[in-house]
Amino acid sequence: MVDIATRVYNHKWKIDPIVRSLIDTDFYKLLMCQSVFRNRPDTTVTFSLINRSKDIRLADLIDEGELREQLDHVRGLSLSRGESTWLRGNTFYGKRQMFRPDFMEFLEGMRLPAYHLEKRDGQYELTFEGKWPEVMLWEIPALTILMELRSRAVLRDMGRFELQVLYARAMTRLWEKIQVLRQLPDLRIADFGTRRRHSFLWQDWCVQAMIEGLGDRFIGTSNCLIAMRRDIEAIGTNAHELPMVYAALAENDADLREAPYEVLADWHEEHEGNLRVILPDTYGSKGFLEQAPDWLAGWTGIRIDSGDPAAGAELAIKWWQDRGEDPRRKLIIFSDGLDVDKIVSLYHQFHGRVKVSFGWGTLLTNDFRDLVPDNGLAPFSLVCKAVAANGRPTVKLSDNPSKATGPAAEIERYKRVFDVGEQVAQKVVV
Amino acid sequence: MVDIATRVYNHKWKIDPIVRSLIDTDFYKLLMCQSVFRNRPDTTVTFSLINRSKDIRLADLIDEGELREQLDHVRGLSLSRGESTWLRGNTFYGKRQMFRPDFMEFLEGMRLPAYHLEKRDGQYELTFEGKWPEVMLWEIPALTILMELRSRAVLRDMGRFELQVLYARAMTRLWEKIQVLRQLPDLRIADFGTRRRHSFLWQDWCVQAMIEGLGDRFIGTSNCLIAMRRDIEAIGTNAHELPMVYAALAENDADLREAPYEVLADWHEEHEGNLRVILPDTYGSKGFLEQAPDWLAGWTGIRIDSGDPAAGAELAIKWWQDRGEDPRRKLIIFSDGLDVDKIVSLYHQFHGRVKVSFGWGTLLTNDFRDLVPDNGLAPFSLVCKAVAANGRPTVKLSDNPSKATGPAAEIERYKRVFDVGEQVAQKVVV
Repeated sequence: MVDIATRVYNHKWKIDPIVRSLIDTDFYKLLMCQSVFRNRPDTTVTFSLINRSKDIRLADLIDEGELREQLDHVRGLSLSRGESTWLRGNTFYGKRQMFRPDFMEFLEGMRLPAYHLEKRDGQYELTFEGKWPEVMLWEIPALTILMELRSRAVLRDMGRFELQVLYARAMTRLWEKIQVLRQLPDLRIADFGTRRRHSFLWQDWCVQAMIEGLGDRFIGTSNCLIAMRRDIEAIGTNAHELPMVYAALAENDADLREAPYEVLADWHEEHEGNLRVILPDTYGSKGFLEQAPDWLAGWTGIRIDSGDPAAGAELAIKWWQDRGEDPRRKLIIFSDGLDVDKIVSLYHQFHGRVKVSFGWGTLLTNDFRDLVPDNGLAPFSLVCKAVAANGRPTVKLSDNPSKATGPAAEIERYKRVFDVGEQVAQKVVV
Repeated sequence: MVDIATRVYNHKWKIDPIVRSLIDTDFYKLLMCQSVFRNRPDTTVTFSLINRSKDIRLADLIDEGELREQLDHVRGLSLSRGESTWLRGNTFYGKRQMFRPDFMEFLEGMRLPAYHLEKRDGQYELTFEGKWPEVMLWEIPALTILMELRSRAVLRDMGRFELQVLYARAMTRLWEKIQVLRQLPDLRIADFGTRRRHSFLWQDWCVQAMIEGLGDRFIGTSNCLIAMRRDIEAIGTNAHELPMVYAALAENDADLREAPYEVLADWHEEHEGNLRVILPDTYGSKGFLEQAPDWLAGWTGIRIDSGDPAAGAELAIKWWQDRGEDPRRKLIIFSDGLDVDKIVSLYHQFHGRVKVSFGWGTLLTNDFRDLVPDNGLAPFSLVCKAVAANGRPTVKLSDNPSKATGPAAEIERYKRVFDVGEQVAQKVVV
C-alpha cells in the first residue's frame, strides 16, 4: 500500500535539505569550538572554501540558487533539545560532561553566521567571516553541501535502474573492502568520512555496514548525528585550524615558533587520555617533534595526516623512544587518504609496535570511482579552511608541499621559522 | 514514518505465499492447456517432480510443513476477475481472443487437484494425478515453490547487510550482462526464467531490468502475471509434454512414430504465425525433421532446447533449404541453458542467416552462483514432468542423452522407433 500521507508530505518540501542538524558535523569541531570559545572567543576569522581539483568546475555543475537554498537552510537550524541532551549527557571517551554548561548554552543559542558567495572561473568562492567559535562551525556543512550537490548533479540524468545498480555496485565494493579488513584481528578503525561523503544517507549506510561487518573493530564515527542515532562512539580530537589561527595571531617569529605548542598547552589543560593526540604536521612534523617540550611526549598518541604515513609513524616511534617513552603504549592514528590496501600494509607494519588506529575518510564514504561515465563521481579535493585571523593570513605547510596553503611570502617565512627542510611531494587525491 | 497498518497487516500472514496467482505461470502452459482441453480432455496423467541434482538434498533443506502450506495455498487459488479479463481481452502475438470462451470458463472454474508428497532419500517425491488439463497446471507452481523454498532455506541465517549485499551483487551481475547484450543491435530476447527463478520478486526485478536496459530488444516474458502487471508481451508456444503424452497413448510402434506429428497437426489447426514453432527434439531432432511432413517446413520457426545449439540450428537451416524454404524468413529460438557468452556467440553465428530469438531462463532469473558460502544458491536441475498417461509411462529422449527420462526398456524402444543414432552427451547445468 502507498502511504499517501508520507508521499504528500515528502512532496511538500521545497528542497531536499542536505544538512538537517547542527550536529551533522565532525565531533572534533565541537571539541575545538569549546576550546576556542574558552581561550580565543573574540578572534575574528575568515574561512574559505577551496577546491584543489580545478578540473571539477563546481559552478558549472551546481546551480547557484540551489546552493544558496541549501546554505540558507543550514542557517535556519538550531540545536534540538534531544541533540543538546545527548551532548550534555553522553559519555565521550569515557568522560561525562565533556561539554561545559557555558559552552552548551552558547551552542544552544548559536546560529550559523552569514556567508558570502560568488562565482569565479567556474568555481564558487564561498567565504565566512566573523567570530571564530561561530564561523568554524560552517566548515563541515559547507563541504557536505557542495559534495552532495555535486553528486546530485551527476546523478540527475540517470534512470531508476541505473541508480539502483550504481548503489548496488558501491555497496558491493564497500562490503568487499570490509571483508578484507575483517582479516585483521586487532583492527581499530573509525569513520572520518563526513566532510567528503557522497551524501548523508550513503555515509549512514557505510557506518551501518561497518558496524555489521566489523563489530568491535569499528570504534565509531566522527559524525555526531550518526553517532547519536546509531548509538555508537563519536570520535575525534583536534585539527590544523587551531595551530593555523594561533600562528597567524603571533606578533613575531619567536611567538610564531611557540604557537603550535601553545595550542597543545591549552588542550592539555582541558583534556586527558585519548583526547591528548598530537597533530604534528601543520608546519612540518620533524621540526615540531624535535622542538617539542617533554610533557608532549607523555600524551596518548599522534595523528599522521600528511606525507608518507609509514615514515611519519617511524618518526613518531623514534621520537618517543628518544624521550624515554614506550611506543607500545602509544597510539598512532592514520587519517590521510586511506584505502584498504594502505590500511592493511600499515596495520602489518605497525601492529604490535604501537597501538594503531585508522580514521578512514573519503574512500570509505565516497568511493564511486569508475561507476559512472567519465568517472563523474570520482572523489575530489575540496577543503574549507581558516584563511585569515584578525586580518592576518594563515599558513599551513603539512608534510606534503602539495598541500601548502597561504601567501607565498608567508609560506617562506613559516618554512624558515619552523626550519622545514626538504619535503617529498605526494599526489593529493582527496 | 512507519506505516503501522501495513506492518501489522504484513505480520498477520500465516505464511509468505510464493505463488499468489494462477497466472503466475508460463504462457505456453495455458496455450497447451487449451489445446489439451480441446483435443485430449479426458486423458489421465501423472506429473512428477524430479530433482536431477541429487546432491541438493531438498528434503533436508526444506521443511515438509512449510512445503505443504505453500502447495495448499496454491490449491486455494482461482482465476481473479482481472486475470480472466486480461486473458480474454488481450492481444497475444497480434491475435485477439486467443483463448476460446469454453476454455476460459473451464479455467475460471478450475482449482488445482490434490498432490501426493513423500520424503525419500533426502528428496521429496511430489506427484500429481488426474485429468491432463488440470494436472498440467501444477508444473510451474510446484517448481517455483520448491525453488523459492530452497532459496529461503539458504538465506535464513544471513544478516540484514549480508542480504543487502547479496542482492546488490546479483543486481550488478545481471546489469553487467545486460550491458553486454545491449551491444547486439538486432537482439530479440525474452524471459523464460519462471520455473527456476530465485524468487518471484527477483524475477520481477530481472524483467524490469531487461525492460530498462534493452528496450525493444526485450520482447517479453513467459510469465503471464508479470506480463500483465508490467504491460509487456507474454511469450511462449508449446513444450515436450504434448508429444510425450501423445506418444505414450500410441497403441503401437507405427502410431508412436506418428505421435509427434499428430501433436503439431492439432496445433496447426489452432494456431498460425509466431505460434507455429516446432520443438523437434523430444525424440531426436535429426530423425524428426527427416520424417516430417512438408507442411511443417512452412511453419514459422524452430525452438532448440537440447544438444549443441549451433549444431541444432545448422540442422534446421539445412532442413529448410532441403524443403525449398528460405531460412532468412524463418525463426530460430534458442532456449537451453543460455547465458550471455552463449547468446553473443549464437547471435553472431546466426544473425542475418535466420531470424534469431532467445528464451533466457535460469541464468537470467537465478544467477546467484558463488554469491554465498559453499555456493548454496547455485542453480540446479529441477523439473516437473508428465511421467505417465492413461497408465502408460512417458519417455523423453531429447538431443542430449543425459536428459533422457522414462523406463529403460521404453527408452530403447523409442530410440529404435525414432531411429535415434549416436548422440553427444552434454552436461546438464540447469
